[in-house]
Amino acid sequence: MSYARQMLDAYPVTVTVDADLLAATIDAVSDCAQACTADTDADLSEQNLAEMVTCIRLCLHCTDICAATLGVLSRQAECGATVLRPLLEACAAICQSCGDECERHARMHTHCRVCGEACRRCEQACRELLQAIR
Amino acid sequence: MSYARQMLDAYPVTVTVDADLLAATIDAVSDCAQACTADTDADLSEQNLAEMVTCIRLCLHCTDICAATLGVLSRQAECGATVLRPLLEACAAICQSCGDECERHARMHTHCRVCGEACRRCEQACRELLQAIR
Amino acid sequence: MSYARQMLDAYPVTVTVDADLLAATIDAVSDCAQACTADTDADLSEQNLAEMVTCIRLCLHCTDICAATLGVLSRQAECGATVLRPLLEACAAICQSCGDECERHARMHTHCRVCGEACRRCEQACRELLQAIR
Amino acid sequence: MSYARQMLDAYPVTVTVDADLLAATIDAVSDCAQACTADTDADLSEQNLAEMVTCIRLCLHCTDICAATLGVLSRQAECGATVLRPLLEACAAICQSCGDECERHARMHTHCRVCGEACRRCEQACRELLQAIR
Repeated sequence: MSYARQMLDAYPVTVTVDADLLAATIDAVSDCAQACTADTDADLSEQNLAEMVTCIRLCLHCTDICAATLGVLSRQAECGATVLRPLLEACAAICQSCGDECERHARMHTHCRVCGEACRRCEQACRELLQAIR
Repeated sequence: MSYARQMLDAYPVTVTVDADLLAATIDAVSDCAQACTADTDADLSEQNLAEMVTCIRLCLHCTDICAATLGVLSRQAECGATVLRPLLEACAAICQSCGDECERHARMHTHCRVCGEACRRCEQACRELLQAIR
Repeated sequence: MSYARQMLDAYPVTVTVDADLLAATIDAVSDCAQACTADTDADLSEQNLAEMVTCIRLCLHCTDICAATLGVLSRQAECGATVLRPLLEACAAICQSCGDECERHARMHTHCRVCGEACRRCEQACRELLQAIR
Repeated sequence: MSYARQMLDAYPVTVTVDADLLAATIDAVSDCAQACTADTDADLSEQNLAEMVTCIRLCLHCTDICAATLGVLSRQAECGATVLRPLLEACAAICQSCGDECERHARMHTHCRVCGEACRRCEQACRELLQAIR
């Protein structure tokens, strides 16, 4: 069981969102932030560097937005749907863009394939959480 | 002239958004992230701690979202309106909530008054930038 | 296998540090950053709030330093021991302080017990990595 | 007067470090984090991209470490010298490396010149603060 799930189960106030879904989303944004950071650096080591610039930039944006989403989701209280909804939309959107770009390089670069999977899983988790809080 | 503005003026590609507006927004989200971090800690030192919990939580969310917005705005390229628009909406929304809560404590705590001003300026800048990119 | 390990295995350049140790450290700092963020918020919900202030502050510091360490470790190249060594020392030191404080509350608050475990695992990983790079 | 200085002056507990020095350091790490983020993106737009890879990587590391230092310095309490000293050493060291590399490109790229200045100012501020807390 992940730390995110253990922390949720130990939370002193009842959480209104489904705990399985929330824990899965927290783990997915955390993994995606890390994968995008690693992919940025791996891209910078590749021979076809000029072709990787878009991928690098999207990974950098994705890291920043996933980090913010991770922070907000890890705190259960006082955020409100007017903040959480657009944040999850932004996170899903950058994961989609970044996942699309990573997939374009997936055959040539294994690190882009792995990062693309992390983006897809994160995008999916954000969209499911968005539906759950509507 | 702020570093943000100097960096914008030295950017090798033409920036499509008004540089004054963009630099002002970058400075505002940067100041707001710092003020919210400092206010969190100042709140934790106050006698009426139990009444400051909402303010602390909103400041923590505001710090995280401003940090992501700062990162995304500081990079000029490859983000796209489907990401930037909801991110700026989330940033304006948390700055509004956090600014409202800070103002409730402004008479009693000067640090909340200062932080509330940083939130208002950031909210305003994000809304102006949102209008400019529509 | 964690994403961190998959990304390491796909890295285009040979990594000089033991990949098992590095991947374990990346996972430990990532878990610790998340657990500290969640613990901050859980502490803010407790009845004995005044007694939790030190724990909250240490968790906030620990989150920030783990996040930086996560970023630096996730990029394999160009950091150098004059940067990495003191960063790992700072990370191990804050994890030790934060873990000590969390343990003081572990019997009363399960979330502090879980967060304390994440801090201990992170401190241990940082110290092992420090020895490996000496 | 910067928000950092205003927040310091409003802090409810007496700060033991010289407030001018602390506020100047907070402003310097905040500016450096932003400049390095912007320089990363500017470097990615340059024709001589392959020569900019070291600069990009150092800027990414510098952004992460400055962000953590900013968070820790913005909170006045409960950190301790065993954490703060190595963190400031890591921050000064990465600012030195990143500043050196930026200066190598300063004649060709104005954004590297500006970023290099931000790194130098940040390194200097961290070293002065280090001496003050010894």
